[in-house]
Amino acid sequence: MTSTAAPLTYDQAGVNYDLIDPLKITAQRAAAATASHLAGHGFTEVKASRGESAYVVDVGPFYLASIVECLGTKTLVADEMAKLTGKSFFAGIAQDTIAMAVNDLITVGATPLVVQAYWAAGGSDWFGDAQRAQALVAGWKAACDTCQVAWGGGETPALAGIVEDGRIDLAASCTGLINPKERLSVGDKLGAGDAIVLLASSGIHANGLSLARKLAERLPQGYLTEIEPGLTYGEALLAPTALYSPVTEALWKAGIAPHYCANITGHGWRKLLRHPSQLTYRIHSVPPKTAVLDFIQKQAGQDDREAYSTLNMGAGFAIFVKAEDAERTAQVARDCGIEAWVAGTVEAGEKQLLIEPLDIRFSEDDLALR
Amino acid sequence: MTSTAAPLTYDQAGVNYDLIDPLKITAQRAAAATASHLAGHGFTEVKASRGESAYVVDVGPFYLASIVECLGTKTLVADEMAKLTGKSFFAGIAQDTIAMAVNDLITVGATPLVVQAYWAAGGSDWFGDAQRAQALVAGWKAACDTCQVAWGGGETPALAGIVEDGRIDLAASCTGLINPKERLSVGDKLGAGDAIVLLASSGIHANGLSLARKLAERLPQGYLTEIEPGLTYGEALLAPTALYSPVTEALWKAGIAPHYCANITGHGWRKLLRHPSQLTYRIHSVPPKTAVLDFIQKQAGQDDREAYSTLNMGAGFAIFVKAEDAERTAQVARDCGIEAWVAGTVEAGEKQLLIEPLDIRFSEDDLALR
Repeated sequence: MTSTAAPLTYDQAGVNYDLIDPLKITAQRAAAATASHLAGHGFTEVKASRGESAYVVDVGPFYLASIVECLGTKTLVADEMAKLTGKSFFAGIAQDTIAMAVNDLITVGATPLVVQAYWAAGGSDWFGDAQRAQALVAGWKAACDTCQVAWGGGETPALAGIVEDGRIDLAASCTGLINPKERLSVGDKLGAGDAIVLLASSGIHANGLSLARKLAERLPQGYLTEIEPGLTYGEALLAPTALYSPVTEALWKAGIAPHYCANITGHGWRKLLRHPSQLTYRIHSVPPKTAVLDFIQKQAGQDDREAYSTLNMGAGFAIFVKAEDAERTAQVARDCGIEAWVAGTVEAGEKQLLIEPLDIRFSEDDLALR
Repeated sequence: MTSTAAPLTYDQAGVNYDLIDPLKITAQRAAAATASHLAGHGFTEVKASRGESAYVVDVGPFYLASIVECLGTKTLVADEMAKLTGKSFFAGIAQDTIAMAVNDLITVGATPLVVQAYWAAGGSDWFGDAQRAQALVAGWKAACDTCQVAWGGGETPALAGIVEDGRIDLAASCTGLINPKERLSVGDKLGAGDAIVLLASSGIHANGLSLARKLAERLPQGYLTEIEPGLTYGEALLAPTALYSPVTEALWKAGIAPHYCANITGHGWRKLLRHPSQLTYRIHSVPPKTAVLDFIQKQAGQDDREAYSTLNMGAGFAIFVKAEDAERTAQVARDCGIEAWVAGTVEAGEKQLLIEPLDIRFSEDDLALR
């Protein structure tokens, strides 16, 4: 089955990063100017963490890392699928939300310790649906159990007039420690000769959902379209995001300290270019796309370049390690139940990502995050 | 000017805590069960922080405190006033959002160190209004400067279909340290004989806005109604929330360690009953209501009991200290530019709040947060 309509780009699906990114950059500059306040408390920021996925402060005996992350629009798929199937998917949605925060926090080398819940509903009555609310609570706790984090508390406001009626805006904040300090994985550790290990994604995760939802509108059977025998498009989209902190913790216990990590979320594989250094990333092995990502690419009529620039395409997380640690890194991930591949190398050279099997090149200009 | 319509209660204004509170309590129980994960990292939770405004973990040399807090619906007033006056109020709104997080975090004795921004818009175009976006950035930075916190970063998602078109859902997460550990102000420190010092609010702050907005609909001139010569109802509502962390930091420098603190937000003065102990709180002096709160109470036709059970009524923060520190605590606050009053005492006896000048009594049943 291939798409019969015109190709669908990410911008057409309603998210225009060109409008958001300039504000992001202005905000980042204002934020950077506040770092000096830490000196008054006897601390300093880890400057290399500016522009990374989590912010890091040197508090003496260890580093403190913190973050807040939004789930995005995946709940809209869960809401639609609940209508179509009568099932609640909010346990998985809870895992997605925690994954957004935890998978970002660990990129700097932190052990996640505390998660806070941000559940902003369109009205008090959202919380009156006991089955859905209990699924959210149970899934949230289960994800905390997997990541070995304490659920500290949170916020459950009712925001009629801001959040749409019947909807919920989900986010998580996460705080952790980089302990011992040598676990810090931002800054100068990454270098030529390092290997790139990719960890399997479980599906679309929680980025690209605007596109995925738009696509559902074009399918005659919508979310109930079978993408594999017995698996609907909606169910496949709702596979909960993989939680990668068990892998990074196991790596540390195995004596492996990543030089750098990238959580592959918005901007897809372009996130592999996140580190500020001028380095070339050469990918020699591309992991299998998951079924749902393959389906989306075909249905949206995207070429590989478009697909890899917006979706995770089977790889949810990248770990950059010493070349001699590469195979063992992949094995540690597999032992945690997450498929992994030694997929490429870091080389001296201009800043670019070369996905050789697909003949794709992304340059610095393709990712303007700082 | 008094109200000509029927009294307006908080429930009628659209927030039904009876639907939210049971879910909150279920979530709190699931959250409490995750505390044991900290042991695997060599840490323990401070159990007394469960049910408090911020969650606290003992990480050895100091305590780690974290929180996420939502602004609520105050942006709806800012949006309406922008239409009516052509001015942007988002610098003040930014301060409100940070205040929600910082003023909660300091209740446990923490020094706020890092704030993360959560700005979830109804669409990418929200960020395209440069004047408004810049005001938000500038106000956010200014509030960080006042509180001497580092702005670590944040999240600026576009959530069409979840957040209403043209609106923004604002929240802040905050991480801090309780350092030295004796600054911890949850647990057994509070006791009979302590004094209650109230710090002035700057207006409605960011709680009770649903009610305030409902009221605007009943006023012939709406937000442009003058509540004092030259001061409209809308402008008065938009006075930014007072930031209290300069006071708690100055107290520590002055050698005063609060036994307990309560941020007076949702549930109004009932928050004075937050501490789990069985103690009686006797208020002998009631601070002046701000003009806008007096106006709201009259217009909504609320009796004092209703008003004090939902709004801050002039007191935004309560500090419980040793009796001999009370006057000096108030003076330290005034030196920070925040009016303060020694307003009452803590006594042995059943759990209740007695606001003597108004003949109001709130009992334990009036506040079910745990």
